[in-house]
Amino acid sequence: MPSHNQPHDPQQHPSQPRHIAALDLGSNSFHLVIARIIGQRLQIISRYKQRVQLASGLDNQHNLSQAAIERGLTCLAMFAERLQGFEPENVRVAATYTLRQARNADIFMSRAEAIMPYPIEIIAGTEEARLIYLGVAHTQPQQHKRLVIDIGGGSTELIIGSGFDTDIISSKHIGCVSYNKAFFADGKLNDANFSAAQLAARQKLETITNQYKQLGWQKVLGTSGTIKAIREVLIAQGHHDGVITQPRLQQLITAIIACKQQHKLVLGGLSEDRKPVFAAGVAIVSALFSAFNIDKMHFSTGALREGVLYEMEQRFRHCDIRSRTANAIAEQYNIDTLQAQRVKNTALALYAQLELSPTDKHPELASLLAWGASLHEVGLSISYPGFHRHSAYLLRYSTMPGFSVDQQTLLATLARFQRKRLKLDEMPPLTIYKRKQLYPLIRALRLAVTLNGQRSTTPLPQISVTANNEHWQLTLPQGWLTTNTLLAADLAIEQQYWHKAGWKLSIGE
Amino acid sequence: MPSHNQPHDPQQHPSQPRHIAALDLGSNSFHLVIARIIGQRLQIISRYKQRVQLASGLDNQHNLSQAAIERGLTCLAMFAERLQGFEPENVRVAATYTLRQARNADIFMSRAEAIMPYPIEIIAGTEEARLIYLGVAHTQPQQHKRLVIDIGGGSTELIIGSGFDTDIISSKHIGCVSYNKAFFADGKLNDANFSAAQLAARQKLETITNQYKQLGWQKVLGTSGTIKAIREVLIAQGHHDGVITQPRLQQLITAIIACKQQHKLVLGGLSEDRKPVFAAGVAIVSALFSAFNIDKMHFSTGALREGVLYEMEQRFRHCDIRSRTANAIAEQYNIDTLQAQRVKNTALALYAQLELSPTDKHPELASLLAWGASLHEVGLSISYPGFHRHSAYLLRYSTMPGFSVDQQTLLATLARFQRKRLKLDEMPPLTIYKRKQLYPLIRALRLAVTLNGQRSTTPLPQISVTANNEHWQLTLPQGWLTTNTLLAADLAIEQQYWHKAGWKLSIGE
Repeated sequence: MPSHNQPHDPQQHPSQPRHIAALDLGSNSFHLVIARIIGQRLQIISRYKQRVQLASGLDNQHNLSQAAIERGLTCLAMFAERLQGFEPENVRVAATYTLRQARNADIFMSRAEAIMPYPIEIIAGTEEARLIYLGVAHTQPQQHKRLVIDIGGGSTELIIGSGFDTDIISSKHIGCVSYNKAFFADGKLNDANFSAAQLAARQKLETITNQYKQLGWQKVLGTSGTIKAIREVLIAQGHHDGVITQPRLQQLITAIIACKQQHKLVLGGLSEDRKPVFAAGVAIVSALFSAFNIDKMHFSTGALREGVLYEMEQRFRHCDIRSRTANAIAEQYNIDTLQAQRVKNTALALYAQLELSPTDKHPELASLLAWGASLHEVGLSISYPGFHRHSAYLLRYSTMPGFSVDQQTLLATLARFQRKRLKLDEMPPLTIYKRKQLYPLIRALRLAVTLNGQRSTTPLPQISVTANNEHWQLTLPQGWLTTNTLLAADLAIEQQYWHKAGWKLSIGE
Repeated sequence: MPSHNQPHDPQQHPSQPRHIAALDLGSNSFHLVIARIIGQRLQIISRYKQRVQLASGLDNQHNLSQAAIERGLTCLAMFAERLQGFEPENVRVAATYTLRQARNADIFMSRAEAIMPYPIEIIAGTEEARLIYLGVAHTQPQQHKRLVIDIGGGSTELIIGSGFDTDIISSKHIGCVSYNKAFFADGKLNDANFSAAQLAARQKLETITNQYKQLGWQKVLGTSGTIKAIREVLIAQGHHDGVITQPRLQQLITAIIACKQQHKLVLGGLSEDRKPVFAAGVAIVSALFSAFNIDKMHFSTGALREGVLYEMEQRFRHCDIRSRTANAIAEQYNIDTLQAQRVKNTALALYAQLELSPTDKHPELASLLAWGASLHEVGLSISYPGFHRHSAYLLRYSTMPGFSVDQQTLLATLARFQRKRLKLDEMPPLTIYKRKQLYPLIRALRLAVTLNGQRSTTPLPQISVTANNEHWQLTLPQGWLTTNTLLAADLAIEQQYWHKAGWKLSIGE
């Protein structure tokens, strides 16, 4: 066994950033996530997952079988190797449904203590729900009032909230491992088993559905492995947005039933690990859709583990998540913040003058233009040649809590087209936003970049713009360009770029 | 005219890094480069180029024509707009051949003074050569004794040096603008004009060839626009390495002569700007190849402007350029330097045990493995999922003075294949290094990453390796894996990855 009594925590070297770890002892899998705190960012550096299926070892008297205990302890011993030298204040271990339920949890706990010097907290269902919501709030865009649903191996948490605040939280004894054991024990994939599982879930949910529906929500987010697995199967089937809908669930159930037996279940995108509990998970999700009249459910990467990690570090409490993300990126890549501010102000001033049709003015678009302008030069830190492409890469692939994938793609697209030739065929596909909505943002950003090309602290004069679809008319103060010949030359080049893209830029006084 | 008497330098805001600017008033083009100093890195943020063709305005009495003076001043006025607010100590203006030669340079200088508050230094040919070499030394790999050649509009500089030290420097009155005027004034592209230009250049070089050949060199680097233009034409012709050789030059001359007239000159990859002086430039390069028996010439991006910029900042003087680059990257991306050090030590220890054939042991390979190991986690700062791909992107595209393009591609490849599936068909093409040389590096790095997966300060035990081509045999201390079960599981997965790639990893005690 590895030794744990080293005097110092090697990962907390004074010159090194703080390292923190979260262990999630779930009913289906155990997870270990390790992160470093860099400035205002949480940076994940390791993830481990072991499928332990603890819940399947729980008998009708709520005793955990010896085999399940051993599986759990073997996994803990592996994780303990990785945690050698971590001080206790940097590790939090959360156990959920199965250890909450198990009458003999104390056996597991006392043996775990010998393996690992960190206390295991068995957290209540509502605490689990609160932490799951925190994980979502710290990593997801926050414009919506949302219903967050986490289906675990043994319990399902349901939370309605906005920003960092929750309106209502519940935890129900519905889980993919326990439901598999209860309703698919005969290994058959048929209507009868699905209906029984769905009915049981509906009954458990009955007491809370009205209250939730009265509160209402604008978006439904699903976390945890079951939702993730359904999403991956849908994508493999060609539903590239990965959104879960009622008709898609129905088709999925039909496809599962066509396989007849659990051990014959084969679906594109479905991993070996997930197979044994997939049917039960799908039955539960389908019951949730019916109970709450859910239209669409999106997957959220943030969940319990992220909630635990974010809560461990004081500096993450109660702050504006998108500003935190943008500031952290600006700091890491040494963005010239004064220039970013100038470009942002000009871009927003131009955009505000446009008389767009209501459908082209999505409420988020102006704010995304502002973020895009704030971060458009991030790629300069990689290299000057082609820096707009580097900016696009960083904005597309960086972990950016508070921004959705579609929003990151939009920011990356703005960065990509901030300068040089408008190769519009290189524009990536977007799901929520339309190209027609994007073009005015690109035009406003390009003009703002060109107009501020001199990086001067002297404020720009009043510049007005009128737009007639692809044709923009810029009006500059009388005589201004004659004293700004470099800018005049840059604007002339910009007119050519617009022309080649089938747009038109007129400049007058 | 823009005003220059602002009390403060807006780009030198206390919270902002130092901004510096270099103006290069060349005989063909004027250039302005602006950079920020971020930690130990010089980060280019703006580049401007205007084709002024000053040298074409120089008559036989060495008087600069009024038209040429006006072209130069117009360009300076544009650049001055961009430099508003820069303090004089942050701007250096270097003028070369044409202003050195012009008898009436004082007219240009005094009018320039009214446009721009920064003194113009007319630098001697040898000073120009020294600065060009400095620009190369700060940006190029330094393993070779090198002959650096810069062909300007009016003069050509030739330097032999190693590291930051020069052995010999010369500046000759050979330039693409002046030679175009002297030998291609009739607009004809024919043998007679080419021969006359080549002969004249050979005569000018005669006095120095012997001394240079006696000193010798291992690599020839060409800087400046003429070499860059030839490189781009060669690449457009399908010579993807862009290396200039004697036979390729000969073919190029034949292709140019086939166009017959300057105004009919059309070659893929050749810009409009370069056309008027391209034939003269090619004639000069071809004369240099003959005079010095040059075999191959590579293009270097660093030249006069970079030399000027690097010399302006004290902290860049006399340091190990690759360490400076690697340290700056490690710092910017918050690399876990202790872990990087552990992985590097293990990788090098494994690699040292291999008995490779001499052809597979390029002297640079072990040191590139060390740099690759030091930087392999750089992509973690973008995001954890797929971070090996992010590392590869950063190492491939970042400005990394001291590393060649091929070396950056190799480092990116090591990073790309440090973990996960070995999709070897995604390996990018390399020119100098061979795949067969790369595979042992990849294997050593992967094993080092796996063996240090626990990021523990406890040193690893003695691990020995023997290799028989694709089959590696790792020998671990007796019983060690039984107390390191997480590692044992990781090694088992690693064996599968090797197997799928057609390699074999055996593990014994």
